[in-house]
Amino acid sequence: MRITAVSGGIGGARFLRGLLRTLGPDDEVTVIGNTADDIWLFGLKICPDLDTVMYTLGGGIDEERGWGRRDETWQAKEELAAYGVEPTWFGLGDRDLATHVVRTQMLQAGYPLSDVTAALCARWLDGLSPAVRLLPMTDDRVETHIVVDRDGERVAVHFQEYWVRLHAEPPVRDVVVVGVEQSAPAAGVLESIADCDVLLVPPSNPVVSVGTVLAVPGLRDAVRRTGATVVGVSPIVGGAAVRGMAAPLLRHLGVAVSAAGVGAHYGARSSGGVLDGWLVDETDAAAVPVLAEGGLPTRAVPLLMPDVGSAAAMARAALDLAADLAARG
Amino acid sequence: MRITAVSGGIGGARFLRGLLRTLGPDDEVTVIGNTADDIWLFGLKICPDLDTVMYTLGGGIDEERGWGRRDETWQAKEELAAYGVEPTWFGLGDRDLATHVVRTQMLQAGYPLSDVTAALCARWLDGLSPAVRLLPMTDDRVETHIVVDRDGERVAVHFQEYWVRLHAEPPVRDVVVVGVEQSAPAAGVLESIADCDVLLVPPSNPVVSVGTVLAVPGLRDAVRRTGATVVGVSPIVGGAAVRGMAAPLLRHLGVAVSAAGVGAHYGARSSGGVLDGWLVDETDAAAVPVLAEGGLPTRAVPLLMPDVGSAAAMARAALDLAADLAARG
Repeated sequence: MRITAVSGGIGGARFLRGLLRTLGPDDEVTVIGNTADDIWLFGLKICPDLDTVMYTLGGGIDEERGWGRRDETWQAKEELAAYGVEPTWFGLGDRDLATHVVRTQMLQAGYPLSDVTAALCARWLDGLSPAVRLLPMTDDRVETHIVVDRDGERVAVHFQEYWVRLHAEPPVRDVVVVGVEQSAPAAGVLESIADCDVLLVPPSNPVVSVGTVLAVPGLRDAVRRTGATVVGVSPIVGGAAVRGMAAPLLRHLGVAVSAAGVGAHYGARSSGGVLDGWLVDETDAAAVPVLAEGGLPTRAVPLLMPDVGSAAAMARAALDLAADLAARG
Repeated sequence: MRITAVSGGIGGARFLRGLLRTLGPDDEVTVIGNTADDIWLFGLKICPDLDTVMYTLGGGIDEERGWGRRDETWQAKEELAAYGVEPTWFGLGDRDLATHVVRTQMLQAGYPLSDVTAALCARWLDGLSPAVRLLPMTDDRVETHIVVDRDGERVAVHFQEYWVRLHAEPPVRDVVVVGVEQSAPAAGVLESIADCDVLLVPPSNPVVSVGTVLAVPGLRDAVRRTGATVVGVSPIVGGAAVRGMAAPLLRHLGVAVSAAGVGAHYGARSSGGVLDGWLVDETDAAAVPVLAEGGLPTRAVPLLMPDVGSAAAMARAALDLAADLAARG
């Protein structure tokens, strides 16, 4: 089976790790990673979501934090601060830094991000069973900026700054995905959507992860047109995001912070959306008939991922829903 | 008193630390640092000699190694190797890495190396007494390459590779200081030579440290013409380099590996060289009359630097010799 999945950071990566656990050696997984939270800091290109997926699937992730490297140290970060170099809020570990150094060197040598990502992933993903490849959504520079109030003015801050430094506290006045309209899908992205059997939308942020991937010109159309079955997993459980900061962004878009709200936001392919099926948590089972009535087949299963086993069960439930929908035709 | 000193890495830096100890708060020291062993690695600009001077004078040096940072860790280096990125032989510490990241970011933003060096030194040298400023010999890219035999062919390797990876073992077939002929002295360098009272040549490598500084167009002439008294300190004690790899390079140039040989190689200003006076170690006292007869006033004093006190005594001996020579007119 060929499976393609869109992914943001921690939630997506953990879901994908569960997915790998539930697949067989002959399956093939392609991950289209969000790059809209990429950031240039200290002259280095940092791709938080790609790295979280790469480290999580490759066994290098810090399990407790969910991002960055295991056995990490923070000496370089401390030194940068001692030099008075801003920003000091970004979590730049010494091991992680090497990834950014290699990436930046390759980018500056002229390689596109997709080639660079493949080179980095050779270390982390080669030899995994089933085979996994990680594609950035685009090779072009795309950056999500969040408009907030500061000293009575509206200013745009990079998503990383909004999330890491401001803890997503200031009200969201606008979300601007700089460069996305001029971007093009990276090599292999559209093909991986067109040629897969199942397309999964993991429980990633619907606005600044899945939303930005779908905003790359051609992406949404490719999802709309694929012969694959498209199944999404709600990142909202019981009226709150399981992790991250989806809530203020959804509110800004006028989307209800609920499994039903996000399901309706993605929408059924039968009525112009991107999904064929939708998984919500058991506690949100009340949304199932509502969404089904609106044309989006929905199923309620446990959607928390305290361990790899539960993530695998979630992924299996998504694949089961896809299989049932495909059988139903 | 205004003192300008040329410097390479460890030997020069330790001598300079002694010099500071022996000066008063109203003195001023300018260091012209060798940049010909600078290297671009991993997309980062690394300036080993500038950093050794900066860390040594600023209290950040690893005393035992003599280069790099105290309390250093090597996580990023380990990761770069895990990515299969070459070279793996360069000693890139996590703390040290931050210096290179800041430097590279500033260079790529368009600042000349001299401005970058000043910015980095603000952390390490501001507030020292006497005041010290560190100038790179040039803002231009200059790199010493050593020609060696490899598999029956002559190949040029970067000085760092020759020294760190090859341990200076292969015979030196040639020394090529790439770019030096097209380089220009950095801002302030010629002025610091013209305007000082004493110009010191510490016990740095005569070929790939002092030699490359003097090879920057205009530098040697400035030394020849300065009204300051120029005193050098022999890096060779008892027929061997105190540290580093001067011997094979001197042999390549046909210079005897001795205090007398290097003194004659630098030469007396009175006969076309760069020195007014020369300090040799007590064990090389036999060279004193030989060199003096050749027109180079020479004095024998202890030239080992097991601690800052002995380095200070060496520097004091150099200043005393300069004062005596100046008094003699």
